[in-house]
Amino acid sequence: MALIVQKFGGTSVGSIERIEAVADLVVKTKQQGHQVVVVLSAMSGETNRLINLAKQIDARPSSRELDVLLTTGEQVSVALLAMAIIKRGHSAVSLLADQVNIRTDNMFGKARIEDVAATRLKHELEHNRIAIIAGFQGRDVEGNITTLGRGGTDTSAVEIAGAIGADECQIYTDVDGVYTTDPRIEPKARRMSHVTFEEMLEMASLGAKVLHIRCVEAAGKYNLPIRVLSSFNPDQGTLISFEETDMKSNVVSGIAFNRDESLINVNGVPSGTEYLASILKLFSENGIEIDMINQVNHNFEKIDYAFTVHTNDFDQSLEVLRNNPDCINSDDVSGCSSVAKVSAVGVGMKSHSGVASLFFDALAKENIQVLLVSTSEIKISVLIDEKYLELAVRALHKVFLTENESI
Amino acid sequence: MALIVQKFGGTSVGSIERIEAVADLVVKTKQQGHQVVVVLSAMSGETNRLINLAKQIDARPSSRELDVLLTTGEQVSVALLAMAIIKRGHSAVSLLADQVNIRTDNMFGKARIEDVAATRLKHELEHNRIAIIAGFQGRDVEGNITTLGRGGTDTSAVEIAGAIGADECQIYTDVDGVYTTDPRIEPKARRMSHVTFEEMLEMASLGAKVLHIRCVEAAGKYNLPIRVLSSFNPDQGTLISFEETDMKSNVVSGIAFNRDESLINVNGVPSGTEYLASILKLFSENGIEIDMINQVNHNFEKIDYAFTVHTNDFDQSLEVLRNNPDCINSDDVSGCSSVAKVSAVGVGMKSHSGVASLFFDALAKENIQVLLVSTSEIKISVLIDEKYLELAVRALHKVFLTENESI
Repeated sequence: MALIVQKFGGTSVGSIERIEAVADLVVKTKQQGHQVVVVLSAMSGETNRLINLAKQIDARPSSRELDVLLTTGEQVSVALLAMAIIKRGHSAVSLLADQVNIRTDNMFGKARIEDVAATRLKHELEHNRIAIIAGFQGRDVEGNITTLGRGGTDTSAVEIAGAIGADECQIYTDVDGVYTTDPRIEPKARRMSHVTFEEMLEMASLGAKVLHIRCVEAAGKYNLPIRVLSSFNPDQGTLISFEETDMKSNVVSGIAFNRDESLINVNGVPSGTEYLASILKLFSENGIEIDMINQVNHNFEKIDYAFTVHTNDFDQSLEVLRNNPDCINSDDVSGCSSVAKVSAVGVGMKSHSGVASLFFDALAKENIQVLLVSTSEIKISVLIDEKYLELAVRALHKVFLTENESI
Repeated sequence: MALIVQKFGGTSVGSIERIEAVADLVVKTKQQGHQVVVVLSAMSGETNRLINLAKQIDARPSSRELDVLLTTGEQVSVALLAMAIIKRGHSAVSLLADQVNIRTDNMFGKARIEDVAATRLKHELEHNRIAIIAGFQGRDVEGNITTLGRGGTDTSAVEIAGAIGADECQIYTDVDGVYTTDPRIEPKARRMSHVTFEEMLEMASLGAKVLHIRCVEAAGKYNLPIRVLSSFNPDQGTLISFEETDMKSNVVSGIAFNRDESLINVNGVPSGTEYLASILKLFSENGIEIDMINQVNHNFEKIDYAFTVHTNDFDQSLEVLRNNPDCINSDDVSGCSSVAKVSAVGVGMKSHSGVASLFFDALAKENIQVLLVSTSEIKISVLIDEKYLELAVRALHKVFLTENESI
């Protein structure tokens, strides 16, 4: 018997029929002898419907009241699923954030969970009941309703699983696992049966959208295995844990990419770290986050810098830099938003040389120019012209994951 | 400066436009120097939408979970109204049952309020904030969500007003007050500017649908004046209080009626109270409530009984009686569901004789046969053939409230 937390996203509970299917799935797990805690999102479309009501009143509604409004979505889901499970002859009880004591900070709309009390949940489990918890929501220390922001229900599920010492947290979504790359770009992409937290963190931060990075971080903190599954086809899935894949597995686990990066060039800056520091300060003061940084020393006097920022911040970045030529000591500021980042990720890289060589060879064969490079122990990322993105993903997938499965 | 509780029903908050209008009305009261607490229903149609979702899952859904589901309706209203008031530059805060400590018993779907803690509300008022409370909902002693059943938000408003010692509870609805009778039957019906709790209790129990009887009872308990107003035209209204109307006012305040009663006849029962007791026990064991009772002694041996029950219980009443001839000591059971009850209500009756005579004269002039009679200190009720209902209401309204306003 295991203690399992099952999280179902908006599409998985998007209609009465889908809720009935989820009830069958939960009851099946219970009948296999497991203890089950369920965490739910709002029915798909509901959150947007509620936001639309708020926007009709105020384009920038009170953030406290927006959270009061939005949390009704999950409350509806948990009540309906509890009804469906009770109809199937099992005991079930829906629970809201205040009933489980999910305490967060008071950052409305993007709160972080500080604590989950296990007492009430353990009580329900001891009485053989299936506990169904509203995800995405919390209460601050004063009892105000908060929401967790993007990917919030995944984080709820992982934090709850951590608090009660669950054996596994199952994230049911509309895809059946984590793939070696996006199957819409490379039809030969394969579902991974296993991936490590480190790899998943890199992939999440690089734009693979299956799990929110905050949720992966939390699971790592608790050393809690996560399984990503499709609620439409729950037999497959990807397990995410600390254990490394066995020796025969791939050096590179997946090819991730991100279209939302833009390139900023600041050329002819005097050499000296203080000049770079003042440029970075300008970004930070304007709330602009930088991803990649590169520098080219032309001679001993001048340096060309290249940065990447989120495409949403592209126009503002150029404006800020151009309005402060004295501060950045350069008047040669340019940029390009039609770029993309492509990365190979894998814990196997740590112990294998030659990965970088294969990586750049593959791009060179396709005549893809590399604009920027960034590496970590388990990934290589490059920035390229966005028009080559699909070509680069397919070329890298071919060399690391299709042709040569046991480098 | 007064402390005013304002309750708005589903029609009053039935659209974004209506919520904006309510915000204007609340802000106006605040600007007049009053402290304001608002209690809201769900937007009209929302509760039915939610019930429909539940019924798709289970025709008889779990009552605990149905309450979790339904309370989201009021949560949406309070968040939206708070946003609208904040947009107008005033401080406002939405509050749910657990945040105000509205404690009820654990009768899901028809809970009764046991206690409302005034602490949090007084804190908000001291900080000059408009508190906006979700009506219809409570929490039981274990923290489970409960709902109050029909007329619940009115009761919430009155209990909250009682707990904080409000000066007045204003019930905004889609009619502009309590009328001398239903204007759809008697166009000469007049809005009463004032009515006593006793009269209102009789009228509520007799079928006048403006206020739920439980709400009137609670207001009487706190000696809390209630004002019924239209949110569409808030300048008029009816005040309900303990004070009796002045000497010049009418002996009869209103003509109430109820179409939902049915007549049951049990004839030829042996005389002796034990036989009546066994008939009443049969009703009570089957959960059937009796309203009027009448008996006719034909001779010293046999008695004919007549009862009225709610029309929903009519078929079951006949069945129960006919299936138990030994128990009721009669095999002559019959009934009629096409009957209606008409009543004249007024505290003035206590000190005026001759009301009954005028009452029956008015009916006799129209050749309306009276099937049953029932009286109290402040009302006379008769059961008649339903087809005469409109005629009877108009005749009684004419004699007591149109022609002869100062009997």
